[in-house]
Amino acid sequence: MAELRTLKKAMIEISGNISTAVQDINDAQVDQLVELLVNGLKSNRRIFVIGAGRSGLVVRAFAMRLMHLGFEVFVVGETITPAVTEKDILIAISGSGRTKLVVESSRIAKTNVGTVLVVITSYPDSPLAQLADLVVEIRGRTKIMEQNDYIQRQIKGEHSPLTPLGTLFESTVSAFLDGLISELMEKTGKDEKYLAERHAVIE
Amino acid sequence: MAELRTLKKAMIEISGNISTAVQDINDAQVDQLVELLVNGLKSNRRIFVIGAGRSGLVVRAFAMRLMHLGFEVFVVGETITPAVTEKDILIAISGSGRTKLVVESSRIAKTNVGTVLVVITSYPDSPLAQLADLVVEIRGRTKIMEQNDYIQRQIKGEHSPLTPLGTLFESTVSAFLDGLISELMEKTGKDEKYLAERHAVIE
Amino acid sequence: MAELRTLKKAMIEISGNISTAVQDINDAQVDQLVELLVNGLKSNRRIFVIGAGRSGLVVRAFAMRLMHLGFEVFVVGETITPAVTEKDILIAISGSGRTKLVVESSRIAKTNVGTVLVVITSYPDSPLAQLADLVVEIRGRTKIMEQNDYIQRQIKGEHSPLTPLGTLFESTVSAFLDGLISELMEKTGKDEKYLAERHAVIE
Amino acid sequence: MAELRTLKKAMIEISGNISTAVQDINDAQVDQLVELLVNGLKSNRRIFVIGAGRSGLVVRAFAMRLMHLGFEVFVVGETITPAVTEKDILIAISGSGRTKLVVESSRIAKTNVGTVLVVITSYPDSPLAQLADLVVEIRGRTKIMEQNDYIQRQIKGEHSPLTPLGTLFESTVSAFLDGLISELMEKTGKDEKYLAERHAVIE
Repeated sequence: MAELRTLKKAMIEISGNISTAVQDINDAQVDQLVELLVNGLKSNRRIFVIGAGRSGLVVRAFAMRLMHLGFEVFVVGETITPAVTEKDILIAISGSGRTKLVVESSRIAKTNVGTVLVVITSYPDSPLAQLADLVVEIRGRTKIMEQNDYIQRQIKGEHSPLTPLGTLFESTVSAFLDGLISELMEKTGKDEKYLAERHAVIE
Repeated sequence: MAELRTLKKAMIEISGNISTAVQDINDAQVDQLVELLVNGLKSNRRIFVIGAGRSGLVVRAFAMRLMHLGFEVFVVGETITPAVTEKDILIAISGSGRTKLVVESSRIAKTNVGTVLVVITSYPDSPLAQLADLVVEIRGRTKIMEQNDYIQRQIKGEHSPLTPLGTLFESTVSAFLDGLISELMEKTGKDEKYLAERHAVIE
Repeated sequence: MAELRTLKKAMIEISGNISTAVQDINDAQVDQLVELLVNGLKSNRRIFVIGAGRSGLVVRAFAMRLMHLGFEVFVVGETITPAVTEKDILIAISGSGRTKLVVESSRIAKTNVGTVLVVITSYPDSPLAQLADLVVEIRGRTKIMEQNDYIQRQIKGEHSPLTPLGTLFESTVSAFLDGLISELMEKTGKDEKYLAERHAVIE
Repeated sequence: MAELRTLKKAMIEISGNISTAVQDINDAQVDQLVELLVNGLKSNRRIFVIGAGRSGLVVRAFAMRLMHLGFEVFVVGETITPAVTEKDILIAISGSGRTKLVVESSRIAKTNVGTVLVVITSYPDSPLAQLADLVVEIRGRTKIMEQNDYIQRQIKGEHSPLTPLGTLFESTVSAFLDGLISELMEKTGKDEKYLAERHAVIE
């Protein structure tokens, strides 16, 4: 059988990482997050989300669905995002847990304001995770492909990874957050029709 | 065995849709797209990308990687996006191929300016696809879960889909575009280190 | 006396256009807009704003202050912007009143949804203004400097305008909207301290 | 004569602050900035701009015009913004010079990367200004209306300022940057037609 083209091998690696991640999910962490969000919706707590680069895009896609679900949600850095308060929940996403401006922003919200901080990361010992009230671990690139290793691999003439930089973390956390939306729909009794009614019509 | 929680079932559905999509990929379409982009990079053609809502976020994540790869790339609607010209390539993403402002924008670029238009969609017969020089089909939600059907399903008391609205299209096209980046890395001889050097440092 | 440097001449032209615009303001139009917004705040009507290019940045600056004032306000095209409804108010800004995507978006909101549409423009006869429930005229470039004229001026070897393209409209409408915020503060009894409390803290 | 309505008084205050600011402009600072940018354009140096909140919108309007003028320019935080290097110029705008994430980002660019840093601020002694290679002072709110004063004024029952928070800085720096564009057009021999050809057509 002919070898698959690179595009397909990469897609299979992404798909595989998502299904493997399912097994690694810490149910206790997810239970706490679901409870926080479901109770938050009932008591009109506002959700703020933050992420940089491609993680910032993933967290926006999540924020959009939270809005469809009826949450009052804001993306840090967008135009109409108000002052975060101690009654709000901030969800920060960073694979490494070391993205400087995300850490700094989360520190302001947590330390100066007293916001509840949820961190989604591959590194539960990272500076960002250490600030958190709740850490949800999502595995990204496995150890063997860590940043320090790939230089070694290049030197030895090994191939570039199919999923460079944060790709595996981003695609897996994206699937995780879509799964979370699905579970929130179930828990809050909202169906797809409810979501569709809130979906932007000017686009 | 206990039934999986909804979050995990949804993740498995997303993962499964990506690996199924691999089989459906039309290699001829992808070959043309890869060739267009590789030649574009060699001849300094600029890439413009457009999408609305969550597809707009997916296309931005792709644009970011194209930039890492050394492409001159612009997101329609962002601050420093210049006038598109007939030498540029516009990549438009829309699951339905009917998102009004994406269709209208693509029509301006294609008809008034003469830009090369690539459309990535689930609907090769849609108004957007009909404007295109090259259509790449990515399957999203299967027929049984089409928008018209879910209302029927609600009436019958069936469960909401695990992956509401455009979720399957968005996650699959996202994996497709990450796979495309991987294949472009191979074809252009760029490795992860090259990408990392272009990755934003202020974040 | 030495001639002023170009930078200063342009600033004086901008300043002068703002103070001249004060005299041209149609008080009846402004009264209607103030009343619409003050009543809107009391009855929790949501405000949506839209604009393209630099007008889009001006309208975002206005949206930010409306948020500081306690309005529920959304920027069309940002992540968490929900479906506009017939109870909402859409404020569209376009100097020419012909910016395609702004006209098209306003048409969707006005015709399909039934939203109240406010248009701020230099052209009360433009396609955008013709859709509006309320037009507020703000003068931009004077006739003598219209787009068709500047080519004539180039040919004759006259200098380029100090304030190219939409600059005068954008700076004047920006001052107008800041003035409107000031009047809304007065009418709603909100002071600067109230605004400061809503001002984003993560920045 | 009847007293002017608040909207008009605020517009006159904004207009007046711009014309007063003209007299306060430090020509030596502007000369250096113009020279840096004109030489930058000749030698293809890239410009990065950064600002938060409404200053972030003002700096984007400036970036858009730099792009129209033919500069390669990026907004920190937007999708396709690459890694800043020591050959690039970063222009940071902050009225107070204390906006945390702007200071932190500028510090990364200046200290870790070695980028040339231009700071536009009302406070030449601020933490941001102290990082800069070149400071351009633009006066915002006069001393009598400083943040610490307005609370005193509230207590005494005095009126809220017509131009709350950073309004005067933002509108004046906006006029300054439009003036700067005008001077750059003159120095580089670009006319309005040149700018119009680069202006986005999909909008």
